[in-house]
Amino acid sequence: MGLIIKGNPVANAISETLIKEVDNFKIQGIIPKLVIIRVGAKASDLAYERGILKRCNGIGIETYVKEFPENISQREFIRELRRLNEDRNVDGIMVFRPLPKHLDENIIKYVITPEKDIDCFNPINLAKVMAGDSTGFAPCTPRAVMEILKYYNIDVEGKFSVVIGRSMIVGKPMSMLLLNENSTVTTCHSKTLHLDKICSQADILVVGIGKAEFIDSKYIKEGAVVIDVGINVDKYGRMCGDVDIKSCQWKNVIVTPVPGGVGTVTSSVLAQHVVEACKHKNKL
Amino acid sequence: MGLIIKGNPVANAISETLIKEVDNFKIQGIIPKLVIIRVGAKASDLAYERGILKRCNGIGIETYVKEFPENISQREFIRELRRLNEDRNVDGIMVFRPLPKHLDENIIKYVITPEKDIDCFNPINLAKVMAGDSTGFAPCTPRAVMEILKYYNIDVEGKFSVVIGRSMIVGKPMSMLLLNENSTVTTCHSKTLHLDKICSQADILVVGIGKAEFIDSKYIKEGAVVIDVGINVDKYGRMCGDVDIKSCQWKNVIVTPVPGGVGTVTSSVLAQHVVEACKHKNKL
Repeated sequence: MGLIIKGNPVANAISETLIKEVDNFKIQGIIPKLVIIRVGAKASDLAYERGILKRCNGIGIETYVKEFPENISQREFIRELRRLNEDRNVDGIMVFRPLPKHLDENIIKYVITPEKDIDCFNPINLAKVMAGDSTGFAPCTPRAVMEILKYYNIDVEGKFSVVIGRSMIVGKPMSMLLLNENSTVTTCHSKTLHLDKICSQADILVVGIGKAEFIDSKYIKEGAVVIDVGINVDKYGRMCGDVDIKSCQWKNVIVTPVPGGVGTVTSSVLAQHVVEACKHKNKL
Repeated sequence: MGLIIKGNPVANAISETLIKEVDNFKIQGIIPKLVIIRVGAKASDLAYERGILKRCNGIGIETYVKEFPENISQREFIRELRRLNEDRNVDGIMVFRPLPKHLDENIIKYVITPEKDIDCFNPINLAKVMAGDSTGFAPCTPRAVMEILKYYNIDVEGKFSVVIGRSMIVGKPMSMLLLNENSTVTTCHSKTLHLDKICSQADILVVGIGKAEFIDSKYIKEGAVVIDVGINVDKYGRMCGDVDIKSCQWKNVIVTPVPGGVGTVTSSVLAQHVVEACKHKNKL
């Protein structure tokens, strides 16, 4: 029988630790501050934003949203970003991506100061993730996966991990984080042959393939841990992951659900990064 | 019977292409220029330096060596590096690493301008390698491996590649370069369990383990391509690789020798990077 491990206890455990830390800051007159930059008002951005605001408020992090019109010029956008870089009161800056096409992310990503870049937009943070340098901020989703594994005492060292996906916000940094924790890591993608054969050897399988319930039991070995980072809509219009969790029920596997899995933890990780940035800035 | 593929033809083919390009530059009054920074005079640095000078001279790249005393201060070192960053006549800068301990690489690596950083010291180039952004300069050794594979028409797309090693100058960028060419990539290291089992599934095996002739035929599957990036000294004091090439002789494998393999190609790759940097600077 499969075991479902939820994200909520992980998110709450992170939050509890942060609440204590932030309470301590307040005694010293310090309040961590996050600014969210949103261009336009996409429904998915707004949903994630609500989650972040709720989480950060609960922890005691001041959070502001800067909403810009869709037609903001690149020059104006960069000017605003620089202003936040220089604002001593701002600890973390999160930019909703992708930005509209006329804003060149390849230029803008270098503008955000790495010390405030709590969602790994600036390549310097990516390089730090690659190097295993803990002063870098990883993207929130792969970091959330690591938090889930840690919370449920799933040791990755020496284990054979398979990551499906090679994006810059999930797959590649995920592989690096697992590698830095001494896992042996295979990165698979759309051009991978014999995906089922490779996945079915994995002790730890992280799936970010973007296809509703694509990964069924034949991809999963007995005893594996399966982390589903997919967010899809099934044929009934319901949110679902990349893993066909029903097909795993008879197997001895541990699996995260969608919804209620990795996605639940990302806003806590974001809050964690804001607190880390605040600590670093104030040399706490 | 194993087939040994040498580095020399690859290096020469790269050089020939570069000679033509540089000849064309000269008609326009442009001469690519490389500056090598060396602190102290380590024997291994000097040997590689001689190889670079010979290669670059043959291509028509002006090359200068700046040798600094072992006790150069960090401030002075950074001042010299900044001078070269700003020098319009310099296209590429290569810094021999590791630097002496009193020079903090974690600070210095951010000083070298990414556009002249032809040996991937600055994390911005690493992040570009990770992103598959062709404007970034990869470290020369993994790039040389890719050139060897290309020259000998060894297609990596869809193939199962295993990289042993996870350093920032070989293993990790190697995995990224293979991944960016659509290979399915497993990264192994000192904590990997069942290394023989994993390696013996590889279509392409890149070995940078640092142990003399450690990898024998039981790690290698029939029909595999084995690239040896190890440089060791055997018990008789002779230079050797990480692969026990003799044990592969009866197998249908393709393998690079040491010496005469990957190491032969790195100076050509460095020259290639200088020419690319020169083209970019002059908008050619």
